[in-house]
Amino acid sequence: MPPGLKDVAARAGVSIKTVSNVVNGYVHVAPATRARVQAAIEALGYVPNLAARQLRSGRSGVIALAVPELQSPYFAEIAGLIVQAAERRSWTVLIDQTDGHAERERNLVAGLRRHAIDGLIFSPLALAGEELAPPAGTPMVLLGERVWHGPADHVAIDNTSAAADATRHLTSLGRRRIAAIGVQDKPSAVTAHQRLAGYRAALAEAGLAADPALEMPADGFHRADGAAAMARLLDAARPPDAVFCFNDLLALGALRTLLSRGVAVPGDVAVIGFDDIEDGRFSTPTLSTIAPDAPRIAQLAVDLLAERLGDGPAASGAPRELRVDHRLVIRESTAG
Amino acid sequence: MPPGLKDVAARAGVSIKTVSNVVNGYVHVAPATRARVQAAIEALGYVPNLAARQLRSGRSGVIALAVPELQSPYFAEIAGLIVQAAERRSWTVLIDQTDGHAERERNLVAGLRRHAIDGLIFSPLALAGEELAPPAGTPMVLLGERVWHGPADHVAIDNTSAAADATRHLTSLGRRRIAAIGVQDKPSAVTAHQRLAGYRAALAEAGLAADPALEMPADGFHRADGAAAMARLLDAARPPDAVFCFNDLLALGALRTLLSRGVAVPGDVAVIGFDDIEDGRFSTPTLSTIAPDAPRIAQLAVDLLAERLGDGPAASGAPRELRVDHRLVIRESTAG
Repeated sequence: MPPGLKDVAARAGVSIKTVSNVVNGYVHVAPATRARVQAAIEALGYVPNLAARQLRSGRSGVIALAVPELQSPYFAEIAGLIVQAAERRSWTVLIDQTDGHAERERNLVAGLRRHAIDGLIFSPLALAGEELAPPAGTPMVLLGERVWHGPADHVAIDNTSAAADATRHLTSLGRRRIAAIGVQDKPSAVTAHQRLAGYRAALAEAGLAADPALEMPADGFHRADGAAAMARLLDAARPPDAVFCFNDLLALGALRTLLSRGVAVPGDVAVIGFDDIEDGRFSTPTLSTIAPDAPRIAQLAVDLLAERLGDGPAASGAPRELRVDHRLVIRESTAG
Repeated sequence: MPPGLKDVAARAGVSIKTVSNVVNGYVHVAPATRARVQAAIEALGYVPNLAARQLRSGRSGVIALAVPELQSPYFAEIAGLIVQAAERRSWTVLIDQTDGHAERERNLVAGLRRHAIDGLIFSPLALAGEELAPPAGTPMVLLGERVWHGPADHVAIDNTSAAADATRHLTSLGRRRIAAIGVQDKPSAVTAHQRLAGYRAALAEAGLAADPALEMPADGFHRADGAAAMARLLDAARPPDAVFCFNDLLALGALRTLLSRGVAVPGDVAVIGFDDIEDGRFSTPTLSTIAPDAPRIAQLAVDLLAERLGDGPAASGAPRELRVDHRLVIRESTAG
C-alpha cells in the first residue's frame, strides 16, 4: 500500500492535520515543521492523491493569472514564476493579458466561475478598490502597488522606498544633476507616482533641489519611450549626469540613445533602471537596477491563493497585505 | 432600431451571407469584398450582437493559446498579437505556458472542454503528429515548424530557407569562417535542425566547407547559452569572423561576450540572430536578424480558428498548411 498522510505524520512526529496543512500549502505552518514534513514526504515517497482531492473539493485545479502586458519582460517573468510555483501544486495556470483595459479587467473578474477556474492572481492596471471585488466565493490575490486595503490578499514591494534606493545610489556616486524618466500625470499611474515620490525624497535627502526640467514624462514604459526621453534630456541646455529610469525597458532605451550619440556610460551619464529583467544582465554596459524578489512574489501569490482555496482557518479571514523585499543591483551602467 | 446584417448587405451591395462571412471572419472572402463590407459596417455603426451569437452558437467566446515559454520575447510578442487579433472578434484568450513538457501539452489538449474553451492555438514543443489531435469537435490551430501534415490547421514560416537567408547575408559580406550557435542533437529539436540545415546549405552555396568546430551546441535558446557558446568560439584555435545565432536571445548573449572581451562587432565578428525581438532594435550595436511576419502569423491563427468555429464550409475541411513570409533585417551588428 502506498504511504498515506498517517505515515508521513508518524515519521515527522506531527499531527495528520499538520501534514495536511503542509500538503495543501498553508503558509501559517512554521518553517522548521514544514521542512520536517517535507523531508518525511520525500523519504516515504508520499504522493498526494490530487484527483481525489479535486473531486472532494469541487476544484478544477486551474487558476487564472491576469497581467497587463506579457510583452513586458517583467510581467512575462512573473508569469513564468507563477506557472512554476503553481505546477508544484499540480495546478494549471491560464493567463489573461488585459492590456490594462478597465472593461477587460471587469469581465475577467466577473467571468471566472463560468470557466471552472478556482481562483485568480491579478495585477490590475485600470481597476482599483472595491471595483476589484470578485464574485463571492472566488478567491483572488492581487499583485502590484495599485491596491492597498483592497478587497483581497495583496503582495507587493515598497515601491517608493525602492525608487529612493535607486536614486540614493546615484547621489552616493557624487552625481548632482539626476534626471528621472517615466513621469506620468494621470491619476491611475500609481507606479509612476510612487517612483517619482521616492526619487524626489532621495534628492531632498542629499540636499539637491528638484528640477522640473529633469523630470521626464513617458507615455509608456517601453524602450522607445526611454530612448525618446533621453534624446530630449541630451538636447536640453543642461543635460543630466545621471538618470533614474522607472523601469529597465526605459533604461535600455535611454542607454541606446546615449551610446549612439557617443555619450560615455557611466563616465558622462550613469543609468539605473528598475525590475532586474534579464535583458539588463546582458546589455553592454550591463544595467544597474532595483531587483524585486520576483520568485518570492510568485510563491506568496500562489501560497495565499492555496490558503483561500483550502478549508483551513485562513480560507475566510480578512484580506492580508504582504510586503516583499527588493535590493539594489549595481552593474556597469553606474559603476563601470 | 439599430442597423442589422440586411442594412450592411444592402449598403455594400453583397448578400447577407457574405456580410455574415465577414463578421464571422472567414478568410475565404475576397479582400475587396471584405473591405467593402467593413466600410459599410463602419458607416452604419453596425455592432454584431455577440451575446446573442454566443448563445446561439453555444460558444463561450474564450480561446486558449499554449506556448512553451512566455519569458521568450518571441512567444510573448506572438501572444500579445494573438490577444489583439482575438480582441477584434471580442474573444478572450487564456494563455497556458507548457514549458514544453509533454505531459502538460497532453493535459492541455485533453482538458479544453471542461473549461468551456472554444478552441486552441497551440505552439507545441514536445508533442508531434497524431499525439496532437484534440478531442473531436475542439478546433485547433498549430503554430511553428514542428508539425507538418499534422491533424490540424498549421501556420509557420519556412524555417530552413530563413536560416539560409541569414547565413547568405554573412557570406555576401565576404565572411569566410561563419559559426552557428544553437545546434541541438535531440530528435525533437526541430527548430534547431532546420536552422542548421539552412546554415549548411548557404555555406555550401558559397563554396565554404562546413566545419564541425564552428557548429556550436546550446542547451537552450537563452542569452546565457549564447554568451557561453561565444566564449568557447573565441577561445578556440581559429575564432570565427561571423556568427549566425539560431535566435535573437542567443545573439544578444553572444554580443555581450564579444563586447566585454573587446572584440569589434561587426569589424572582427559579424552577428546575426533570428526572430526580430524588440531587444535587438535597442541593443548597441543593434542586431541584424530574420523577421518572421509575426502580426500575420497571429492574424492567420485567429482567422483559421474562427473559420473552424463558424458554420461556413471551412468549418470541417481537411487541415490546411499556411506559409508566412519572413524578411532579412540588416542592422549594425553586420553592417556597422
